[in-house]
Order: sequence, then structure tokens, then C-alpha cells
Amino acid sequence: MSVQEAAVDNGVNVGAILEARDALSATPEAARFKWRASSRWIGGTHSQHRVGDFFGLGAEQQRDKSFTFETDHPELFASEDRGATPVEVVLVGLAGCLSAGIASVAQNRGIQLRSVKATLEGGMDLQGILGIDSDVRNGFDGIRVNYEIDADASEDEIAALVAQSQKRSAVFDIITNPTDVHVAVAKA
Amino acid sequence: MSVQEAAVDNGVNVGAILEARDALSATPEAARFKWRASSRWIGGTHSQHRVGDFFGLGAEQQRDKSFTFETDHPELFASEDRGATPVEVVLVGLAGCLSAGIASVAQNRGIQLRSVKATLEGGMDLQGILGIDSDVRNGFDGIRVNYEIDADASEDEIAALVAQSQKRSAVFDIITNPTDVHVAVAKA
Repeated sequence: MSVQEAAVDNGVNVGAILEARDALSATPEAARFKWRASSRWIGGTHSQHRVGDFFGLGAEQQRDKSFTFETDHPELFASEDRGATPVEVVLVGLAGCLSAGIASVAQNRGIQLRSVKATLEGGMDLQGILGIDSDVRNGFDGIRVNYEIDADASEDEIAALVAQSQKRSAVFDIITNPTDVHVAVAKA
Repeated sequence: MSVQEAAVDNGVNVGAILEARDALSATPEAARFKWRASSRWIGGTHSQHRVGDFFGLGAEQQRDKSFTFETDHPELFASEDRGATPVEVVLVGLAGCLSAGIASVAQNRGIQLRSVKATLEGGMDLQGILGIDSDVRNGFDGIRVNYEIDADASEDEIAALVAQSQKRSAVFDIITNPTDVHVAVAKA
């Protein structure tokens, strides 16, 4: 092991990622994943959600755990505030995706991270979702993400980490580009 | 109170929402909200996130609590699986937004809900994020949402609830239409 390899450890197994990249280049059908969530309405604007199994590498993948979430609207909207609002949850997904990418790119480039912090803010004009003005969109009118990163690297190298993470981020793509959503309904 | 009003209770205060709509029609600047999240990298692909205060009705809005989230990548990617993947978190946000809308629209239309369940699945070809094929997008190639709803209403009325919720959903809009994301970086 070289000094460089011993010195930089962001907790990302870049070797495994590069191996996966080679393996999936050879068998592209294995690269087709399906990510899932299930959801149950509790009452009012409050719902509970669960994330567990997914499909990938050509097979159902069972986790040994599941992750639960609650969403609601705040008291300001006469709701119970029993969970984050769904749009705040989207900001969480964006932060998680960009930060995982930053750590992975840093590892690949031999840059030791000491801390990575982000604040995110999405503006929204409620005239959209309330149906007051049909020219106002329902979603965010834009999102600002501010990263503050402490790392053994120059400002330019740190900026390049974040730029590369954006370029390969699934959630950044989902938010900045259109994705088709098909909703089906059955009466129970 | 009429029999109809007494009979239908989905836990949504539609009166308050309609009052807010009237109030915000008169003072559109109060309708400009800012939703926020903050995020801290823990190690590897694992991050912790917090949702708390937001801005709206022309003022900073303090919650009496905050909501925390963890995101990570699964063991399949040589990660620790300490939280849902960021793209699964986006599915949670979509479910939460659509279900809150369904409950609100049902209340407004005098339809009693008994149960609302959803399953969501987003397809993703990892050749995108792994940089194997630049023609493959990083994000979902599409999302399918399946609702199963038990309510005092016909199949057509139930389908119309879901359609109206989609029409007014912030997260549905965020996913199906492009949103500008500006990322700034500072060296700590």
C-alpha cells in the first residue's frame, strides 16, 4: 500500500465501484435497477412511508432492514406537523445524492475530506398549489445549495469535486430534467 | 352543521385552506415560501440531514421540533446501508405529496376516505451514474405510482381525486418538469 492510499480514506470503496463499473459495462442488463417505496395514509395530510427491497443486478435485492419516513404539512396550514413536508424531503434527497458523490469523487481523486456541510433552500410561490394563479408553478421556482467543505485540496479542486458530483448525480438529474410519472388508481 | 359535514372527516381542515387561499390572493407576497434542509456528511456515502425552520407569510417560521433523515447507499455498492438511497427518498416525497393532496381534495368534495395506499417504483439504468454510457441519464427513466384507495365514492370519483392531486402537487411538478438548481461551494 502506498503512502497516498494509506493517507486518504473517505470511507468510500472506490475499488468496488470501479469493479462494478467494469462488470456492468460487460453486462448492461444487470445495470437496470428498480427503486421502490410504499406509502400509507394516516389521516389529514400525514402519511407513513417505507423503503426496503429493490431490484438490481438482475435479481430482487433484500435488505436486512427497512427505513421509515413520515410526511405531513406544518401547523401553519392547519395540519399536525408530524413529519417534514414532501418538498423538504426532496431537498434531503438532493443533499444526500450530491454529498455521496462528493465523497466518492474525492476518494477517486485522492483528496481527503474532513467535513462536508450543505444548506439547501427551495423557493415556492404557494399561489401555484393553491390554484390562485395558474401561471405560477406548483413546485420550486429554483433551489440553492451551499456547500462548505473542509478538505486537503485547493478551492479549485474542491469546486471541481462538487461539479463532478452534480454531473453524475441521479437526484440532481431528476430535479433539473423532466421525468415521466405514471399514476394508476384502483378502488380497494 | 349538515349531515354531509358531520359524515365526512379526512382530518383535513379545508376551511382553513380556503381561508388561506383567500388571504394569499389578497397579499401574494405572503405566498412566497422558502423550504430548507441542512446536511452533514458522516463518512463514505452516508449523510445526516435536518429539516426545521422555513420562511412563509412574510416571516421566519419556527417549528417546535425538527426532523432528521439519514441517506446512504446499499451494501451492494460496498456501502454501509445506513439510510435509504437518495433516489428512494425522492419517491417518499412524491408519495407524501400526492397522498396529502388526495386527502385534501377528498375532504373538499365530501368524499370519506377509509384507506389510501401507494407503491412507487422508479427505474434507473446505472450505466448513467457510473459513466458507462453518456446517452443514459443519471436519474429515473420513469416512475410508476400505484394507488389503492378505499373510499365512499365511485371508481371514477376516486380516479378524479388522484388526477386533481397530481394537478396541484408540488413534488409531481418538481419531478415531471425541470427546476433550476444552483450549487455554490466554499472552502471551510
